[in-house]
Amino acid sequence: MNEIRGYNYRIEPRDVDFSKHSTVMALGDYILHVAGEDADRNGFGVRHLNEHNASWVLTRMAMEVYEMPAEYDDIRITTWVSDVSRVMTTRNFEVFDSRGAKIASAITNWAMIDLTARRALDLHTLPQHQSMVQNIEPPMPLPTKIAPPDAANTYKHRVVYSDIDFNCHTNSMKYLQWVVDTLPIKQLEEKRFSRVDINFLLESRHGDLLKISTNDTGIYEITSETGKPCCRIAISME
Amino acid sequence: MNEIRGYNYRIEPRDVDFSKHSTVMALGDYILHVAGEDADRNGFGVRHLNEHNASWVLTRMAMEVYEMPAEYDDIRITTWVSDVSRVMTTRNFEVFDSRGAKIASAITNWAMIDLTARRALDLHTLPQHQSMVQNIEPPMPLPTKIAPPDAANTYKHRVVYSDIDFNCHTNSMKYLQWVVDTLPIKQLEEKRFSRVDINFLLESRHGDLLKISTNDTGIYEITSETGKPCCRIAISME
Repeated sequence: MNEIRGYNYRIEPRDVDFSKHSTVMALGDYILHVAGEDADRNGFGVRHLNEHNASWVLTRMAMEVYEMPAEYDDIRITTWVSDVSRVMTTRNFEVFDSRGAKIASAITNWAMIDLTARRALDLHTLPQHQSMVQNIEPPMPLPTKIAPPDAANTYKHRVVYSDIDFNCHTNSMKYLQWVVDTLPIKQLEEKRFSRVDINFLLESRHGDLLKISTNDTGIYEITSETGKPCCRIAISME
Repeated sequence: MNEIRGYNYRIEPRDVDFSKHSTVMALGDYILHVAGEDADRNGFGVRHLNEHNASWVLTRMAMEVYEMPAEYDDIRITTWVSDVSRVMTTRNFEVFDSRGAKIASAITNWAMIDLTARRALDLHTLPQHQSMVQNIEPPMPLPTKIAPPDAANTYKHRVVYSDIDFNCHTNSMKYLQWVVDTLPIKQLEEKRFSRVDINFLLESRHGDLLKISTNDTGIYEITSETGKPCCRIAISME
């Protein structure tokens, strides 16, 4: 099974920022949407796992963007799983413009958890753990483990209704949005995101008061009120 | 010209909240998108007005929701202009589900402004001011003028990158989002928005620190740092 599957989207007005190009969050949302659709189509999606009281949890994500698509651009996102270890799967993505030129790549890592115990499950217990793998290399360096920054600046954010998903957990791309929203607007006008790494460490919920800390070298940590890290993000712009 | 035009959309995962139904903001975004598309198609869109250094400004909006569409539902939004006075147009909308049942209505009022003077222009100077009108009644009571509330509670919001549009002004639906985000989650779980009225009074920009005031009877006012009203919102839930 080495045919790479692809999914088509159009960059809609609500996906773009003042530059009339997609935000990095909207592109990330499309990529995560592809992950869900493709897993579903192949019989190991969240719906299938839920029948066994299990679910996928996104643990790491990295994106490299070579050219941000513009409003109304048609994009095609291809995806394949390159590895399933006992603790996580590696799912890869490439994003192409309408002329077939590659404009972005991404890699995600997913763990499988038991929904009652909230504990990681051995992925080699999945019947599909071998057939789900396609023997194609990841398109870019793997997501990195991010160390906590020496915080120079901090911001607060209360998790609100528009931040949460159907589980009442914070949507993955919202952590990135909160970080991007702290950047000077001039920097967002003049540069583009060349690479973003995200480590998802602990879910946050509606009403949680989170702290965003940064050392201004592009490393961010988002912590709970009790100081536990929920998410770390490393961004590179050029 | 009495054929009502319609536009088709699908409620996508990022449009829905924890209930797996569209947020009222996402529905409002589709409605405003229809306004832009339909005006463009008929030769009096923002692009056309920009050629004459003019633009449309949304001054009032009202929505009535009878049933909120669910994730992956196909919806059809019809639209027509019922009135063009010297100071504003009245554009109407009806939202239908895939079986053709009406699930929402909306009305918007738009003024035309000169982009240099930021002053309202006489709409009867538009060559299309008569032909753009379709002789069909609005589907619901017109948007109301909202009086400022006696503020019992206040919240602060700094306008950030993810709030702004291509003009670096706050996106219309973000004012509604900030208000909805202040509501108790229990209320959002148990009730639905039956009617929302919004008065847009003054644009806000990236970096502005806004104050949201409410009397807890569903009336909200969003004011600038100098106390000028930017937006008033009245919400009814049932």
